[in-house]
Amino acid sequence: MKALVFEGPGRKSLRDVPTPQLQHPHDAIVRITHTTICGTDLHILKGDVPEVTSGRVLGHEGVGEIVSVGPAVSRFKPRDSVIISCITSCGACGYCRRGMFSHCDDGGWQLGHTIDGTQAEFVRIPHADNSLHPAAPSADKESLVLLSDVLPTAYECGVLSGCIRPGNTVAVIGAGPIGLGVLLTAKLFSPAQLIAVDTDATRLERAHAFGATMLVDSEPDGAAEAILEATNRRGVDVAVEAVGIPATFELCQNIIAPGGHIANIGVHGKPATLHLERLWAANITLTTRLVDTLATPELLAAVIRNSLNPARMITHRFALANLLDAYDTFSTPQKSNALKMLITA
Amino acid sequence: MKALVFEGPGRKSLRDVPTPQLQHPHDAIVRITHTTICGTDLHILKGDVPEVTSGRVLGHEGVGEIVSVGPAVSRFKPRDSVIISCITSCGACGYCRRGMFSHCDDGGWQLGHTIDGTQAEFVRIPHADNSLHPAAPSADKESLVLLSDVLPTAYECGVLSGCIRPGNTVAVIGAGPIGLGVLLTAKLFSPAQLIAVDTDATRLERAHAFGATMLVDSEPDGAAEAILEATNRRGVDVAVEAVGIPATFELCQNIIAPGGHIANIGVHGKPATLHLERLWAANITLTTRLVDTLATPELLAAVIRNSLNPARMITHRFALANLLDAYDTFSTPQKSNALKMLITA
Amino acid sequence: MKALVFEGPGRKSLRDVPTPQLQHPHDAIVRITHTTICGTDLHILKGDVPEVTSGRVLGHEGVGEIVSVGPAVSRFKPRDSVIISCITSCGACGYCRRGMFSHCDDGGWQLGHTIDGTQAEFVRIPHADNSLHPAAPSADKESLVLLSDVLPTAYECGVLSGCIRPGNTVAVIGAGPIGLGVLLTAKLFSPAQLIAVDTDATRLERAHAFGATMLVDSEPDGAAEAILEATNRRGVDVAVEAVGIPATFELCQNIIAPGGHIANIGVHGKPATLHLERLWAANITLTTRLVDTLATPELLAAVIRNSLNPARMITHRFALANLLDAYDTFSTPQKSNALKMLITA
Amino acid sequence: MKALVFEGPGRKSLRDVPTPQLQHPHDAIVRITHTTICGTDLHILKGDVPEVTSGRVLGHEGVGEIVSVGPAVSRFKPRDSVIISCITSCGACGYCRRGMFSHCDDGGWQLGHTIDGTQAEFVRIPHADNSLHPAAPSADKESLVLLSDVLPTAYECGVLSGCIRPGNTVAVIGAGPIGLGVLLTAKLFSPAQLIAVDTDATRLERAHAFGATMLVDSEPDGAAEAILEATNRRGVDVAVEAVGIPATFELCQNIIAPGGHIANIGVHGKPATLHLERLWAANITLTTRLVDTLATPELLAAVIRNSLNPARMITHRFALANLLDAYDTFSTPQKSNALKMLITA
Repeated sequence: MKALVFEGPGRKSLRDVPTPQLQHPHDAIVRITHTTICGTDLHILKGDVPEVTSGRVLGHEGVGEIVSVGPAVSRFKPRDSVIISCITSCGACGYCRRGMFSHCDDGGWQLGHTIDGTQAEFVRIPHADNSLHPAAPSADKESLVLLSDVLPTAYECGVLSGCIRPGNTVAVIGAGPIGLGVLLTAKLFSPAQLIAVDTDATRLERAHAFGATMLVDSEPDGAAEAILEATNRRGVDVAVEAVGIPATFELCQNIIAPGGHIANIGVHGKPATLHLERLWAANITLTTRLVDTLATPELLAAVIRNSLNPARMITHRFALANLLDAYDTFSTPQKSNALKMLITA
Repeated sequence: MKALVFEGPGRKSLRDVPTPQLQHPHDAIVRITHTTICGTDLHILKGDVPEVTSGRVLGHEGVGEIVSVGPAVSRFKPRDSVIISCITSCGACGYCRRGMFSHCDDGGWQLGHTIDGTQAEFVRIPHADNSLHPAAPSADKESLVLLSDVLPTAYECGVLSGCIRPGNTVAVIGAGPIGLGVLLTAKLFSPAQLIAVDTDATRLERAHAFGATMLVDSEPDGAAEAILEATNRRGVDVAVEAVGIPATFELCQNIIAPGGHIANIGVHGKPATLHLERLWAANITLTTRLVDTLATPELLAAVIRNSLNPARMITHRFALANLLDAYDTFSTPQKSNALKMLITA
Repeated sequence: MKALVFEGPGRKSLRDVPTPQLQHPHDAIVRITHTTICGTDLHILKGDVPEVTSGRVLGHEGVGEIVSVGPAVSRFKPRDSVIISCITSCGACGYCRRGMFSHCDDGGWQLGHTIDGTQAEFVRIPHADNSLHPAAPSADKESLVLLSDVLPTAYECGVLSGCIRPGNTVAVIGAGPIGLGVLLTAKLFSPAQLIAVDTDATRLERAHAFGATMLVDSEPDGAAEAILEATNRRGVDVAVEAVGIPATFELCQNIIAPGGHIANIGVHGKPATLHLERLWAANITLTTRLVDTLATPELLAAVIRNSLNPARMITHRFALANLLDAYDTFSTPQKSNALKMLITA
Repeated sequence: MKALVFEGPGRKSLRDVPTPQLQHPHDAIVRITHTTICGTDLHILKGDVPEVTSGRVLGHEGVGEIVSVGPAVSRFKPRDSVIISCITSCGACGYCRRGMFSHCDDGGWQLGHTIDGTQAEFVRIPHADNSLHPAAPSADKESLVLLSDVLPTAYECGVLSGCIRPGNTVAVIGAGPIGLGVLLTAKLFSPAQLIAVDTDATRLERAHAFGATMLVDSEPDGAAEAILEATNRRGVDVAVEAVGIPATFELCQNIIAPGGHIANIGVHGKPATLHLERLWAANITLTTRLVDTLATPELLAAVIRNSLNPARMITHRFALANLLDAYDTFSTPQKSNALKMLITA
């Protein structure tokens, strides 16, 4: 089958690889109908994620149809339409029993990372009963691929970990797909103000369309001043970091009100400075996490009833055969205004 | 009256100052019977807390007897024995209604900071109804002075913010008065393992007496290795920082298990490094805070029924007239093995 | 001054009574500009609330202007516009420190109950700092009177105690002012389905206008069947009882899904049957409570930014001089379609 | 094999039945080494649980050794020692993802109820990966059988649902095995007072040994008065119902303080009266539930480190061949003082 293969730092190819087979009783083989590219895939290609080895098929997002299931799979059968969760999990280990699927003893983020992923015609999904979700026939198919990772990550790591409540003032730093997903799902808790911060005017326009009530087009220092100005210098109740660099994490610390929450989603490549010399007395809560995908069924239901319309994030469409073009487009957003690529197979 | 006065960085004196008078309807004047010295007082004396100005009477802990009350005070009357909370609070502003007395619009940490404090014969307490607690006649008087700050800080900022639960593995970094208070009150939630880390053997002996089940006498790097070794390299569920320097905060990050809580209590003078390049995916929660003293009545009740015996922290006793000697002893713990000084007036 | 006076069971009069004076340092005297009538007032008039004695001025809702304050009041001054909370509270007792203002040792529901109330030209408010809220000049004045009781009761006792979450199916039993308030504020948490149950078609029309997505015009037994039918016989996640009779409480038990919440708001005059023979194994949570008014500032902010428009509940307007007419209208809703009466003075 | 078979209301026999075989890929067959009898088994024998049909092997508690596993079982293998959870669960359905194993779409309380149970030489366990726990070799074997049901039920449905916190006053109604389990595990949260209520002096003696600090030997009415007397007529913070009849549920309502929790564990055969005419304004929370067994690993760890010693509940020991004698003894506790029977095979 055709698949996007990581060939070592800086190199990728779209080439033939063996079609995956069932290996364990709890496996399912899924024929991919829709997949997409994540910013993390670009990190991997640069060589920033050393546990990804040469020859790995990339991709951890996708929608498809079940081809075959192992004898232990009881919730799915061939021909079922499914959403693939970026996190695979056994459901039974100590972490899973605590709802921390992201740290499953026999799972976690594996797809396109430590096992072959979804940017291919077929993929093997371990622990299928706990790692797939039925794709409602009535749902907008293009929205579903955003339920593999983008929307649950935005909602769980940003909105839920940030404890957003009605009336809150919330700042979302970064208006890429994850930041837009936070704006979209934050509204489920009716914040009073949703401030989007980015340095790209096009992204901020989208942020407005996704629900931002205030747009801050500025580098971190200027953004802090604008936000303090807009909040009577009290700061925000919740700051969501959706970029992943020290400067934006610093911004969160500069705008957080006493008693506030900083919810980090950004994938950081280096340490940040934590201003404990100020924050030690500020009664703040800071969270970091991978998505556990516990909320996926809830988000899927919201998509089905049209309460969320995440497909608006899709800016470009490609066939699987043109996946290299999709990577080119996705990796030059300044030129392409790319947000999410929809890849159909 | 006699009082301990800050005379500018590096200088203090025990001298006569005017006796405080009622200034607001909600004030009470308390005659101090017992007070103590906090590590924060040493910071102030060094000049590290710039909002403390020359001429300020120090001290934010104390037990005493009400001398007079303003017309707005309804819960206390002259001759009542009271515990003074280190946090004064109005009980009615937005922060107080959320239980964040520490950030009260008309209060917070004021005593010995922005208004005159308790290392004196008398002190004025604003918002007395909400800032004093009745000192049960049956309670051990020496324990009560530890309810002004030490015990509620340890319990609220360490145990409650750290979400310690039955069966948890907990590391407490620093075995000074606050660290010992964490050990003492952590036991209320029956952790499986209570690890105390310090570099002073005498302090660690005390930690053992206060309930530590494992003692780590080591610098941070060695301590991390010892704790990972003892936890099958999984780390701890809760790490409580009770020192306030970058190295011990780093230690917390090195030993925290996925899903764990880092509860910072230490008063930090400079920023720390936050290892987001590792922690972004670790599902950890980090809290910083001042004490709100909401838990003081609960702790007072525990002291009264002898469930806690914090007076064991008192290592030296002085009369108010010898307060300068008490400072000498307290500021040379390597020599004196000082923990808490009890000052009686 | 003129006031509505309870003259014993079945009797009331609008007559002259002495104007209230400051009695305690923490009192405020408020000139009433807007008040209203609550269903509870009708209960009192029937003689159902024995602690209300003859001669009592009724009313626990109101908006007005401060006339004078005692020396202990620091947050308000004469001429301030204020919203009167139906719950007065000291902010400092054990219950208040736990946020249970409703059970304040020196407060709770006192107005128009154990002390003179708001259906008068003036009212004395104890513990004014904690029991009044500043009435934003920009807010719609008619909405504000609904912040004394209706909206906080609906939100705290129904929405918050019911733990409504995004995607939930919620049934609200009773579409009177409280039920409508639940519909209005439940939307802050984005439930998937909001089912309103009543036997009055006009009320159900209003329920629809307030956000109900399904209307059930039926007696309790038929309603249970309709709701089970609409939920694949699974039942609802949250059932809010806003009537106060055994049959509607029974309905809640008949439609609650495993793991669900029943939030009782109704003022019950007699016991109900609890079907423990079924529910013992159903993992349900049932809550009962008075409003604590902790959420009033949050709701006020929502009203100010026009996220809630509770003034739509006001169906009739009267001058204080015609308060007896207002009572007539309010007590014959079948004829008058009365919901909330706005009384201006 | 030999098994205890329900032969219709009022009749049971210990007779040969076919040895269970693997039916589904996720099944395990366990050879029982230890089992016990639950009060629920007596209810079944009386005919009170109609879904139990004639021919059913009873029993939902047990410890044993794995004989064989289906191909889908990955966490266990033949010869592993295991604890059988009374709740079997798939770990993947909507209820399981919310942690409500008790209402699993393909599980819940099945053993000795809708499928054959553990009072036999062998038992088939569905969804073995999620329904069995490894029995630590170092643990006291007799304690382990109490982890199938008694201890998790007491802890989850009583202690956790009752939200017991340090300093609370807690009443436990009923000092049978479940009530004793509540006393034992409530101590993990350091309540100030643990009141045991029963009408049997022997049981109360045991309650004292299990940690009760006050014993009330009285019918419900007298018990209410004694408890109100002992709590300054304020009542208790948490009341745990561990009997299952209307009178003891009424007692809980009569002693609950404002803001308190009533945690029902009792298996009720008929409805109870809920005094909403008083409780509507009392800010109470009432919970009902089956055990989910989420806490079993935590309790197992506590047993292993000797923090809990539940084996003290075992009063009589029998071989499986004498199981009918064990039933006789267990069903006449007034004569036998029976608490838990240990059956070894």
